[in-house]
This record gives sequence, structure tokens and C-alpha cells, in this order.
Amino acid sequence: MSKPRTLTEKLFEAKLGRVPETGEIVVVPIDLVYAHDGTFTLALDVMKETPLLSRVFDPKRVALFIDHAAPAPTVAAALVHRVMRRFAKEHGVRLFDVGTGISHQVVADEGLIKPGMFVVGADSHTVTGGAFAAFATGVGSTDAAIAMATGKLWMRVPEQVRLKLSGEAPGYIMGKDIVLTIIGMVRSDGMIYKAVEFQGEGLKSISMDSRMTISNMAVEMGAKVGLFPSDAVTREWYRANHGIEVPLLEPDAGAEYDEELELELPRLEPIVAAPPNVDNVKPVREVEGIEVDQVFIGSCTNGRYEDYVAAARILKGRKVKEGVRCIAVPASRKVYERLLRNGIIDILVEAGCFVAFGTCGPCIGAHLGLLGESEVAVSTTNRNFTGRMGHKESKVYLASPATAAAAAVTGRITDPRDFLPADARLMVVDPSYSFKP
Amino acid sequence: MSKPRTLTEKLFEAKLGRVPETGEIVVVPIDLVYAHDGTFTLALDVMKETPLLSRVFDPKRVALFIDHAAPAPTVAAALVHRVMRRFAKEHGVRLFDVGTGISHQVVADEGLIKPGMFVVGADSHTVTGGAFAAFATGVGSTDAAIAMATGKLWMRVPEQVRLKLSGEAPGYIMGKDIVLTIIGMVRSDGMIYKAVEFQGEGLKSISMDSRMTISNMAVEMGAKVGLFPSDAVTREWYRANHGIEVPLLEPDAGAEYDEELELELPRLEPIVAAPPNVDNVKPVREVEGIEVDQVFIGSCTNGRYEDYVAAARILKGRKVKEGVRCIAVPASRKVYERLLRNGIIDILVEAGCFVAFGTCGPCIGAHLGLLGESEVAVSTTNRNFTGRMGHKESKVYLASPATAAAAAVTGRITDPRDFLPADARLMVVDPSYSFKP
Repeated sequence: MSKPRTLTEKLFEAKLGRVPETGEIVVVPIDLVYAHDGTFTLALDVMKETPLLSRVFDPKRVALFIDHAAPAPTVAAALVHRVMRRFAKEHGVRLFDVGTGISHQVVADEGLIKPGMFVVGADSHTVTGGAFAAFATGVGSTDAAIAMATGKLWMRVPEQVRLKLSGEAPGYIMGKDIVLTIIGMVRSDGMIYKAVEFQGEGLKSISMDSRMTISNMAVEMGAKVGLFPSDAVTREWYRANHGIEVPLLEPDAGAEYDEELELELPRLEPIVAAPPNVDNVKPVREVEGIEVDQVFIGSCTNGRYEDYVAAARILKGRKVKEGVRCIAVPASRKVYERLLRNGIIDILVEAGCFVAFGTCGPCIGAHLGLLGESEVAVSTTNRNFTGRMGHKESKVYLASPATAAAAAVTGRITDPRDFLPADARLMVVDPSYSFKP
Repeated sequence: MSKPRTLTEKLFEAKLGRVPETGEIVVVPIDLVYAHDGTFTLALDVMKETPLLSRVFDPKRVALFIDHAAPAPTVAAALVHRVMRRFAKEHGVRLFDVGTGISHQVVADEGLIKPGMFVVGADSHTVTGGAFAAFATGVGSTDAAIAMATGKLWMRVPEQVRLKLSGEAPGYIMGKDIVLTIIGMVRSDGMIYKAVEFQGEGLKSISMDSRMTISNMAVEMGAKVGLFPSDAVTREWYRANHGIEVPLLEPDAGAEYDEELELELPRLEPIVAAPPNVDNVKPVREVEGIEVDQVFIGSCTNGRYEDYVAAARILKGRKVKEGVRCIAVPASRKVYERLLRNGIIDILVEAGCFVAFGTCGPCIGAHLGLLGESEVAVSTTNRNFTGRMGHKESKVYLASPATAAAAAVTGRITDPRDFLPADARLMVVDPSYSFKP
């Protein structure tokens, strides 16, 4: 009988026909490769300079996204968009143009990513796809070009880490609180090049939206990938969203890991990452009262249905504090449409939010809400280093959408429990759930 | 008995206690003065340099708007916004922050402008307020500073022009078609410093939204102001929107004008201003078929309820042509909220539009949709000079929202009559009208 395998080993085995050694350099076939307006032109330069790389290997497995600065905030951005449209037309590649959404969200919206796939994107947050039991990872633009042209890429098989999530999270906890707590434990360099596998009975109560948040920020602890199994929650999500059956895909019982960690979910409380580092985490209660100029709810980290439902629970019937900008940018048109249908956009706008959709915008300081000198933001995004969202003297506190919404109402960092009913459950596993405001 | 007076003369008379001579320099008290993030810092410099101008004369009559680039697309913009917030706080002045909307729309939404007022704004499109029988005009930032500090401003009493709109416009005609036709007649320099008074039985069928479009573009023919009377349509609008009674305010019968013009509304057809001049107008039928990269529906010219209803009539059940960006940015949060309630945002998004609200953005090439090299836009905005919306090799066709929506669907300049039922009536005089899609 063969040795029990980790989920990472199973994914490689399915592609290679054998279980590789940890640390081995292997060449894997790539199921999906993508790039966006922040990285594609560098990949294109490589393709142009290298005759062997001049064509895409399979137009159906390549996708381009105009998401980093969309609609174009500068002429330079408009010119990049134009180059991408021309390339997409010439090569028969799908281009998701202005307004469709952020790549990592759209691959889920459109069902382009599935359990078992190897996915590379010219963006570090491609790891979001680990939520779907896909080996999804960010690569440089040169590697993206090679994958686009050849359909293959070399990888060093990463060390594997089991991160057991035990118990059930309190109702006020979201994926963001879970992943920020983990980053606080392991630090921003704690998982460099490792495959982090999320396991344990806690998964049952973690929705796909929150799994995406957790996988998304795996890269903020240095991980190559943050993998969830394909379990009952995953399968129900694919049925509800894409009408398809996907396989169960889990590590074998007794699989051996290079490292094992555990997080007890019942002990979690709302948490922030204080500037200027993602691992500078503190319970919200410890930093309560700090004045806030801007709140941003969105990005590939927290721009999903569940995120705005959580915010709406707090914003409904309340107003954004005068003097605070609250900017809500759902990650894709599909997310926005679902929020529209369910009356959640109405709640956000009535509370006084600015609402758009489908751009990375404020998260990366590209447009739609840069911070001025000495301004403070509570943001649901993924990075808070100096200058990330604007002026080098501005400060960013990373938090869950619930914590962000609470700050919007009070104008200060505030524990969302102050606004939530005791029975609130912010992570919603049922994919057909619709919020009744 | 006194000589019959023009509307312009009546407005001056009410402030001065006498009818001034045309050409006379007079000092008038100002009822409302405003500036925005594109102009305020220049006004502030003047106030700081001049001790006599250091305080605002009456905080209730001064307003600031963050609308030109909101939310901030650059650190520089964020810093300007910050200066404005600080000034507003210090001086007790109302600041309409990110997301509230474009100044000229918000003064109407909030009922800050009323018939008979003298209003100056540090923005040329302050003339929009002429739709409300207010003497509303754009001034330089220095003049705005003086008005903010003293509550007064000098003006040369302008020549008066009667522009008689006769007959009733066909149902497919909007205010934009009317004003572009007029600009084509009189040219961009035809009304320099004149007060253009719109009169005639045609007014009965011209809604307040369309009147605002017409007054808004009075400055594109050089006019100091474009005045509508306060008539039954105006009064009904104030009742429905603000629950107040405003006076009738019309020129006397037999008033003498420096110039008289007439436009027969029944002869109008959909029209565009082709690049690179606002007076380079042509019937849509003459330029049909020109390929379009971007459609923009919004701005202080055409970002109102009626405008999106017109677009929605064409976009409902249809899709924006692949390869075309259609960007819809309602002029204010209030307009967006009304569109939300009436299901029109749904129609726009389902058709494939990008939707945000409350910023001048694309109109001035500030953010949210700049044009790349050689790109062509159909835009509902007010200026199409070289480089206005982005690259100096891009081209802008100014058009009504109906014409813009038709171009979004076909990807080419298209006569909106191809999509409209014969009984469509795009200008809606009834202020409580709600679109039933």
C-alpha cells in the first residue's frame, strides 16, 4: 500500500503520474494562466523578444484581465489596456475588460478555476484560487509569458504545512480575522515557499468567500499556495454557482507534513493588522478609538457577497460618520449584481458609501481613493506597508469588512461586536443564502 | 408705466433696486458661491494673501464640493481634498465630500439654488443654474475668493438675447440635441458675455433635467448665463423635489432684446458635435457607422435621472457591444439612489456598463475612463477639444444619452431612433415620473 499523501502531493501526482519529492524541481502542465494590466506588458515584452514564445499554447487556457486600474485613470493606463485588447484579439484569448472585475474573483465567478488545477497568474494574489483546491500561485511576468506560450512551468515542490483549524469560529468572526490571526502567529516570512494546507473540523463553518480571503492572504505569510480541500462546502458551491459536480479532493488520513500548526477557532476575536506590517496584528479592542479618515471595503481579499452582507448588517439604518469616506468596490460585476438584487447596494449607498465595482483601485493606490498626508484608513485589503494606499505618511489598518463598517459608522476603530446581534453569523456557508435586510 | 423688462433685467433689478443699463458695471450681492477641488486651492491662496479676504462672509452661502476627482485618483488630489475639509471645518462652511456629487447637480438636489438668486461658482458650468431662473455664472478663482469673503461681485450687465423655442420637440429629442443645434447655429463664440434667455411655447415640453443640460452648455457658445424663466414646470419641480413654492419669474411681454433668434423644435433631429470643436455639429445620420471604443454617460451636462432613463430604454434587454466600454456615472448620489429605486442601475449593469457616481472623472480626463491613442468616444459631456478626455490623438463625439446608448449597443455611431419606439418621449416634464422598465 502506498504512503498516505498530502493534498499538495495528490495535486502534483495527478499531473506527473507520480508523487515527487519535496524540494524536487518538476515541470508541470498549467491548466490556466493569466495576467492583468499591471503585469501583462512585461510578459508581452518577453513573448516578443523570444520567437519560441510568440504564440499562446492554448487560447482557452489563457486569460487577460483589465482590473488594476479600470476604467483607465491615466492615458498610460489606457494605452496598456489598448495593447491588451489587441493581443487578445490577435491570439483569440479571453479578455475580461473594464468593469468585469478583479482577476482572482472573475476566475471563480466564471468557473475557470476547478479543484485539481494548476493555475499561475502574474499577480501574487493568484493564491486566492487555493480556496478551490487548485494549486494556484503567483509568478513573475517572465514565468507567466513562458506558461502562456508553452503551457508548462517549472516548480520546486514546496514543503507542506498542515494548519489545523479546530472548533467552530464565533459568529462575528470572518475569514479575514482567521487569516490575520494566522499571520500574526507565523509572521510575514513564516511560510516562505511552503504549501499551507488548511484542515480540521473548523472548515465546515468556513464559507467559500472566507476561504478565498484566507487563501488570498497565504502569500502575506510567504506561502507558495494556501490550499483548502475540495469538500462538501466546495462541492455545494460549484453546484449552486456553476451547476457542476467537482470531485472530493482531500489529503489522505495519516499524511506526513513538514510542519503542523493548530488554531483554535472558538478563541478568535476581531483583529487588525496595524501599520506598517501585515503581521503587526492586534485585537481590535486594543486599538479602539483611533480616528479614521477613510474606510475601504473591497479588493480580491474582501470584495465578495459575504463581505458586503457583513458590512450591511452594520451600516443598515446607520450613517457613515461625517468627515469619513466609505468606499465600497465589489470585486466584480457579478458580485455587484447579486448585491443589487438583494438590496445591499441600496443599504451601502443610503448609509453614505461611494460605490463602484470591478477594480483593484484603492488597495494598490492606483485610483478611487488614495490617502493624503497623515490620513488613517481601515481597509479590508491585504497590505499595509508604508505608502501602499497613497501618501507615505498615511496609515492603513487591515481588517474584516465588519470591523471596517464599524469604523465607518463611528469614525474610529471600533469592535464590530458593538453593532452585531449576539446571534449574527457572518460567514455564510450556504451558497444560495440571500440577505434579508 | 415702466418699460417692459427682460428676465435678466428683472434679476438685476431685484438686487439693485433699479434696472441697470446694458454694459453698465454693477456690484451685486451674491446668494451662493461655490468652488470645487479643481479650483478651490487657487481661491484659498487669494484669501490667505489678502487679510481683508481671510473670512467667508456667510458660511451658509458658501459651499465646497469634492467632485472633480473623487475618490482621489492621486496623492495630489487627496491633499487638495484634505485642505478643503480643513477649511470647511474652520469656517463652518458646508463641504460636499467624496460621493455626494457634482456641484452643479448637488445645488439642485439640495435646493441650494432658487429662482432669482445670483450664484457664482469657480467653474464655467455654474451656468447650469440658469435652468432655475437664477443668474448663475462661472468665475475665476480670484473672483470666487472675493465673493466668498465679501458676498459681492462686480459684473458688466450683459447684452440680452431672446432665443425663442417654438413648437414641440419630437419625442426622441433631448435637451442635448436642442443645445447642440443652437451651438451649431450661433457657433462657439456667438454669445460671448451675453445673457441668453430661452423662451417660447417649446418650453412647456422641456423638462428641468433637459433645461439644466441646455443652460449648462450656454457657456459653450460663450454666454455669461443661459436663463430659463421660472414657469409652471419649474414650480412643479420645486414642489416635488423640495416641497416649496417658488415665484413665477418671466420676462415682461414686449421686452426688448439686443438680439432675437428662433429655433423650430419640430425640425430637430438627433445631433452630435464632432471633434475637435463643440460647434462642429452634424446630424447623427451623417456620421453613422463610425466605430466607437468608449461611451460615457454622465457629467454635469447629462448625468441626471432623465438621461439614464433614456439610455435604459435602449440598453434594456440588449448588451453593450463586445470591445466597447460603456461608463455610466450619475452626477450625484441622489440621482443614483433614484435610479437604484427604479431598477435603472440594474438595466445598465446587466447590459454591461461600468457604473459609479458623483464624479466629473472621464469628462475632464481626470480618472475613470481616459481614452488611449486613436480611440473614439461618444460622450454626453460638454467639450470635445483635442485631448479633453485623454490622449491627444483620441476623438470625442458629444451626443445625447440616447445617442450614446445606441452607440454602446452597436459599437458605432448610431441614430437612437433605430432603437426607440415611435411614441417614446425622452424629455419628461412630470417630476414624479418613474420609469417602468
